[in-house]
Amino acid sequence: MEKECVSVDNSNGKEMECLSIIPGWYSDVSDVFPVPGEIISIKIEKILFKGKSKYQDIMIFQSLTYGKVIVLDGIMQHTERDVCSYVEMIVHLPLASIPNPEKVLIIGGGMGFTLREVLRYSSVEKVDLVEIDEMVIDVSRKYLPEIAKGYEDPRATLYIEDGNAFVKNAAPGTYDVIIVDSSDPCGVSKCFFEKPFLEAASKALRPGGVYIIQAESAWIFLDFIKKLVENCNKFFKGSVNYAWTNVPSYLSGAIGFVICSTEGPPVDFINPVNKVDLDIISTNSESPLKYYNSKVHAAAFALPTFAEKVLYPKK
Amino acid sequence: MEKECVSVDNSNGKEMECLSIIPGWYSDVSDVFPVPGEIISIKIEKILFKGKSKYQDIMIFQSLTYGKVIVLDGIMQHTERDVCSYVEMIVHLPLASIPNPEKVLIIGGGMGFTLREVLRYSSVEKVDLVEIDEMVIDVSRKYLPEIAKGYEDPRATLYIEDGNAFVKNAAPGTYDVIIVDSSDPCGVSKCFFEKPFLEAASKALRPGGVYIIQAESAWIFLDFIKKLVENCNKFFKGSVNYAWTNVPSYLSGAIGFVICSTEGPPVDFINPVNKVDLDIISTNSESPLKYYNSKVHAAAFALPTFAEKVLYPKK
Repeated sequence: MEKECVSVDNSNGKEMECLSIIPGWYSDVSDVFPVPGEIISIKIEKILFKGKSKYQDIMIFQSLTYGKVIVLDGIMQHTERDVCSYVEMIVHLPLASIPNPEKVLIIGGGMGFTLREVLRYSSVEKVDLVEIDEMVIDVSRKYLPEIAKGYEDPRATLYIEDGNAFVKNAAPGTYDVIIVDSSDPCGVSKCFFEKPFLEAASKALRPGGVYIIQAESAWIFLDFIKKLVENCNKFFKGSVNYAWTNVPSYLSGAIGFVICSTEGPPVDFINPVNKVDLDIISTNSESPLKYYNSKVHAAAFALPTFAEKVLYPKK
Repeated sequence: MEKECVSVDNSNGKEMECLSIIPGWYSDVSDVFPVPGEIISIKIEKILFKGKSKYQDIMIFQSLTYGKVIVLDGIMQHTERDVCSYVEMIVHLPLASIPNPEKVLIIGGGMGFTLREVLRYSSVEKVDLVEIDEMVIDVSRKYLPEIAKGYEDPRATLYIEDGNAFVKNAAPGTYDVIIVDSSDPCGVSKCFFEKPFLEAASKALRPGGVYIIQAESAWIFLDFIKKLVENCNKFFKGSVNYAWTNVPSYLSGAIGFVICSTEGPPVDFINPVNKVDLDIISTNSESPLKYYNSKVHAAAFALPTFAEKVLYPKK
């Protein structure tokens, strides 16, 4: 399918070009990670930024109904309206599952959504965030300053580095939790879904530590998820699980996570030890939780039968 | 946004016209029940049927990746690929929640998906299906014969009638379960979401009977759902709940249900009394369950915090 080059007003009243299938709309049609037969389109109000870093094309636009939308290499990553259901889940599924998480490593997630969410935990003493693409951070600081302010927290250390090398060089047993907040398994993110990285991540975790990686939708990429679960089973000897959440702006309206624990104190993912209490965090804080709660946490592990049969054939 | 009239090959090798935003793709853009700012598009392979009944425009097309797709008045209703997550939930959420469901009323659902699912229960003795639009049934018999064969079951009785009048004329206490498998709350379906119908439905149920109605996505129509829950609370004195499921071809990837019980033997919706067992129904039957299982049942009642706060403000 051809995209035409059309002009869309940007924030300065000037015009900025954007490839569109429907003039004035952004459509998630990627040559890099294609999903045939279905398209989600979001109405553009203004294009705020378009640039090309060493690693990828980056665009931010103001949409009509989804707030600001972040696009990397022609694939929507996050929208302000529904990022809550992705980011609250990728953070609280692991962090609510172990007592007093202290040391957390985030791979990717340069926009800062994940970092901000991790910093809600008063038990967290140190967060290392490893983002390969500095432009992602710069763009976030300019266009999403409320999100990016997690970088100012003294507990956070930012590394502009290759996450793959960083994890391989980490001292064994360093982290309580590793969160891989990566884009789709292609390009610079491909390695995070492969055995050498998974093995390195399992070693960088303490016994009974938790690893989580975004792992696509079971409606679309079930074979890929099955393979990832198999690979994780080789290195994470506590448990390996698939959980999912509903994100409207992602194809199929869903995205999943593979969440694992290393051998050691057992982790009960279904019944989280930390109750991220509605009254304290969600209602009274400056930026309340929008999506996550303990019931949603447990529900994320209930898989449709078609997925359960493939991912857990022995159950 | 303008749709252009483009031609798409139909099953006879002839061309049939279809309004498209993207040539060769069907896009869910409705003037009747509009959702601004977002569009889902599905690639058309062949248009199988286009017609206009007394009540609505009807189209069925063969898609590239979603199987056959049914469109009413310019809004996608079901696709063969993901109808499981809608129809298995709207049927098993109520039927698995009461012991030995015997008498079931279905309003709408003329395609027959819901009927076929209800007939899985050996306890069911009688199913009345009330569909106002005969053309929907005729089209289903022709293009979805496997689905429509539920109509041949001697336990099923079809009424080509107005569901609103049917329920108002039903003898009090007739049904164990009423399923309203309607299209969006506009046009002929609007009345099903309003007080007079809800009151009539509550009276047509036995004590401790169950009512379920499709009730839109909390991401998009939360105010509408809140109002519907309030209206249901007036007439269903057992309990009133919102549950949801992930349907890729619906905007936001989600649709919900309001599910209620009348005063009488209490119904525990979260812990269903009937275990629709994977080994028996899902694996061994001719058309196994694809989506529903007991864990998914319970998980459907776990609401995102943003929805829980609005729908259950006192909890």
